[in-house]
Amino acid sequence: MKAEIITIGDEILIGQTLNTNAAFIGSKLTDLQIDVSFSCVVHDNESDIKNEFKKAYEHNDIIVVTGGLGPTHDDVTRKCVVEFFKTELIQSEEVLSDIKRFFEVRGRQLTKTNEGQALIPKIAAPIRNSRGTAPGFWIEKNKRIFIVMPGVPYEMKGMMENFVLPNLEERIGERQIFKRTINLLTTGIPESILYDRLGNLEQLLGGASLAFLPSQFGVKMRITTQSDTDQSALNKLEDIEQKIRSLVGKFIFGKNDDLLEGIIAKLLTDRNLKLSVAESCTGGLIANRLTNISGSSKFFERGVVAYSNAAKVEILKVNEDTIANNGAVSLEVAMQMAEGIKSISGSDLGLATTGIMGPTGATPTKPVGLVYIGICDDKICTAKEFRFGEDRLLNKDRASQAALEMLRRNLLGISYDD
Amino acid sequence: MKAEIITIGDEILIGQTLNTNAAFIGSKLTDLQIDVSFSCVVHDNESDIKNEFKKAYEHNDIIVVTGGLGPTHDDVTRKCVVEFFKTELIQSEEVLSDIKRFFEVRGRQLTKTNEGQALIPKIAAPIRNSRGTAPGFWIEKNKRIFIVMPGVPYEMKGMMENFVLPNLEERIGERQIFKRTINLLTTGIPESILYDRLGNLEQLLGGASLAFLPSQFGVKMRITTQSDTDQSALNKLEDIEQKIRSLVGKFIFGKNDDLLEGIIAKLLTDRNLKLSVAESCTGGLIANRLTNISGSSKFFERGVVAYSNAAKVEILKVNEDTIANNGAVSLEVAMQMAEGIKSISGSDLGLATTGIMGPTGATPTKPVGLVYIGICDDKICTAKEFRFGEDRLLNKDRASQAALEMLRRNLLGISYDD
Repeated sequence: MKAEIITIGDEILIGQTLNTNAAFIGSKLTDLQIDVSFSCVVHDNESDIKNEFKKAYEHNDIIVVTGGLGPTHDDVTRKCVVEFFKTELIQSEEVLSDIKRFFEVRGRQLTKTNEGQALIPKIAAPIRNSRGTAPGFWIEKNKRIFIVMPGVPYEMKGMMENFVLPNLEERIGERQIFKRTINLLTTGIPESILYDRLGNLEQLLGGASLAFLPSQFGVKMRITTQSDTDQSALNKLEDIEQKIRSLVGKFIFGKNDDLLEGIIAKLLTDRNLKLSVAESCTGGLIANRLTNISGSSKFFERGVVAYSNAAKVEILKVNEDTIANNGAVSLEVAMQMAEGIKSISGSDLGLATTGIMGPTGATPTKPVGLVYIGICDDKICTAKEFRFGEDRLLNKDRASQAALEMLRRNLLGISYDD
Repeated sequence: MKAEIITIGDEILIGQTLNTNAAFIGSKLTDLQIDVSFSCVVHDNESDIKNEFKKAYEHNDIIVVTGGLGPTHDDVTRKCVVEFFKTELIQSEEVLSDIKRFFEVRGRQLTKTNEGQALIPKIAAPIRNSRGTAPGFWIEKNKRIFIVMPGVPYEMKGMMENFVLPNLEERIGERQIFKRTINLLTTGIPESILYDRLGNLEQLLGGASLAFLPSQFGVKMRITTQSDTDQSALNKLEDIEQKIRSLVGKFIFGKNDDLLEGIIAKLLTDRNLKLSVAESCTGGLIANRLTNISGSSKFFERGVVAYSNAAKVEILKVNEDTIANNGAVSLEVAMQMAEGIKSISGSDLGLATTGIMGPTGATPTKPVGLVYIGICDDKICTAKEFRFGEDRLLNKDRASQAALEMLRRNLLGISYDD
C-alpha cells in the first residue's frame, strides 16, 4: 500500500509553521506498514491543489490531505474535492448536529458561516470532529482511499485516532508484506567510522535497509526489514540487530525514542545510586537534561555551575595552584571538580566538565572546542580530553552528551576508548 | 521568481524527523520575495528523486534540494544530480583541502569514504561547508538555479547564509513591492489580555497585518506592512510599533530573534553586574540558558542546582526550620535561596526557583505547576508565586522564562505586577 500526504497552506510553505501534521500522519501510516511514498506542501490555490490531487491519485492507494477546511474565504480544499470528484455538496444532518452541539456546549451563537460547514461532498462519508467545527471527508473510489482533514493539529489528531486509523487498519486486512523497524542510537563514534566498522553491509543486511542519521548527539542507525510474515520480519531484524551489536555494541546507548539522560536515570535509579555534577563549560545543561526526567530527585542530588574560578575553589575545593599551573581548562581541574562535587554532596558519583565553548576564550594552546570531562566513583577518578567544533550551542550539546556517555560506560564497565 | 524546495530522506517521510530545513529555507526565500510554490519530501530512491528534479525544473526558476549527501551507501543525491544533468564527477581541490583541514583540526584520521566527498558534478560550483565534510552544489543552466545542500540543519544553514542567500539576492535584481516585518516579543501576559489591551485593531493597523503567536515563552506579535517603496513600508511599521509599545510596552522584552537571556546578558554586561542563580525546580535550565550566550562569563558568576534539601541547607544556607515549617516549595525558601546564592558568590544579584514540575510531587495544598521565584539585589529581597500547567518540560520553560523576566523588570525598574 502506497500513500501520499498533501498539506495545504501558505504558512507552511513560507516557513512560519513547522509541518508537524505530515510528521504525525507519516509516522502513523508507517506504523500500519503503509509506504509513505511522497509528501508535499501546496499553496492555498485551487489549480495547484487539484493538480496535486490528480498526480497523487495516479500513483497511490491512499491520499491524506490536511488543511484549507476552515470557514473563511481562503479555505478552498472542499471546493477542490467537489470539483476533482465531479460531485456536489449535500448537507450532513449528523455533522450539522455536531456543529450545533459544539456551539451549545460553549454557550456561543451559531453563525451562518459555521452552519455551512455541515455541507459535505455527496460522495464522501463525513469524519466527525469532536474538537472543532470542520468535518473531514473519507472517500473511497476506484480502489483508492482519499482522506481530507482540517489543518489544526489537535483536531486532525482526534480524527486520525478515532476514525482514520481504525478504518485504514480494517481496509488493509490481510497484509502481503510485513515491515519491522528499529533505531539503534550510538554516540561517541563518527558516521564514517561506524560505517567502516560494520564491514560488508550487503552481507550484514541481506536485503534489509540501513540508514545513518547523524546529529550532535550521535549517529542513529535505522534498520528496516520486510518479509511475508510479521514474525519473519521481526526475526530478521533481531538477527541484524544482534550482528550490529556484536560489531559496535559499546557505542549503542539505546534504541528508538530513548534519551541518553533517560538511560542514565534508569541505571542510577535501579542501582539506588546518587549523582552530582559540577559544570563549567556545559553551564547547567547536564543538570537540566537529567532533571528533565520525571523522578530525577531519586538519583540527582545537586549540581554546581562553577563558571568562575572562585566557584571552583570555594564550592568544589579545586586547588588554586592546579588552576594556576594548568589553567581552568585542563585534565587536572576536570578531575578535581568531579572529586569535589562527589565529596561535598556525599554522592556515589561525581561528573564534571570544563572547556572552551567559543566563539571567544581560545588561547594559542587551547582552541575553541577543547573540553575535559572528569568522572569519579567510589573506586576511581579519571578524566578525558575531547575536541569538538566551532559552534557554541552544538559544543554544549556535544560536551553534555560525551559526559553522560562517559557516565553510562562507567556504570556498565565499558572502556572509554574507541 | 518561483521556487520549489525538495527534501530528500525517508526519516522525514516516516515522521521521525520534523522538516525544519524546508521551514528555514521557505522563510529565507520568502524574505527575498521569492514565491515558494511547492515543497516536497522524496524517498531516498534514485528514480523518485530524478522524477521530482524533472518536474521541479519544468515549473520553477529556483530549485533547492537538501539531504542525501552524506558519505554512506544510502546517500544517492549526488548520483542523481550527475545523471539528471548528464554530467560527470570531478575532484574539487578546494573541497578536498576543506575536508582535509576539517579532519586535521579534529585530530581525526581521514578515511577514503570522506575523501570521496571531494568529487562534485563537473557542471556545478561547489558550496563550501565550513561545518561538515559534504560540499553543496550550485548549478546554473537554462536560466534556472539548482541548489543542493546536505540535510544536516547546521551545515545547511551555514551554506545558506554564507553562499546561497547572498548569491540569490544578487541574481534577483529590482523589486516591485516592498514588505517589512517585525516580531515584538512579550512574556508574562496571556494572548487574550494582550489582544484586549491593543483595543481597535483596524484603527491601530490601518491595513497592515498582525498575527499573535503564543508559546510557553510568551506571545510573539508579528506585524507586516507593505508599500511601493521600502522607506514607506518601514515608516508604516515604525508607526505601528510605536503605538503598540505605548499600549503594552512593559511586556515587550525584545524583537525578532532576541532571546530573553540575551537581553539579560546585555543589561548585566553593560552595567558590569554579576549574577548567580540557585535552582531547584528549573534544574539548571536558567544557568544553561544564560551560558548559551557568548561572553556569559562576564556576568554569570555561578549557579547551584539545589535539588536536595541538603544542598539548599549546606551550600545556600537556607534555614532548616524554614524548610520544616513552610516546605521546600514556598515563598520563604525561594527568598532564602536567592539571598544565599547572592551572599556566597558575592554577586550583585541572586535569582532562585523552587516548585513542583510534575507529573509527581504534588501535595493536597501544593499542586503541580506551583512555583516560587525569589530575587535579591543590593537593596531588596522579594519572591513571587506562579501557577503553571501540567507538563513537566513546559513548566521548566515557563518557570525559567518567568524568573528571567522578573530579573529583567528588576534591572529596568518595572513593577512585577500586571
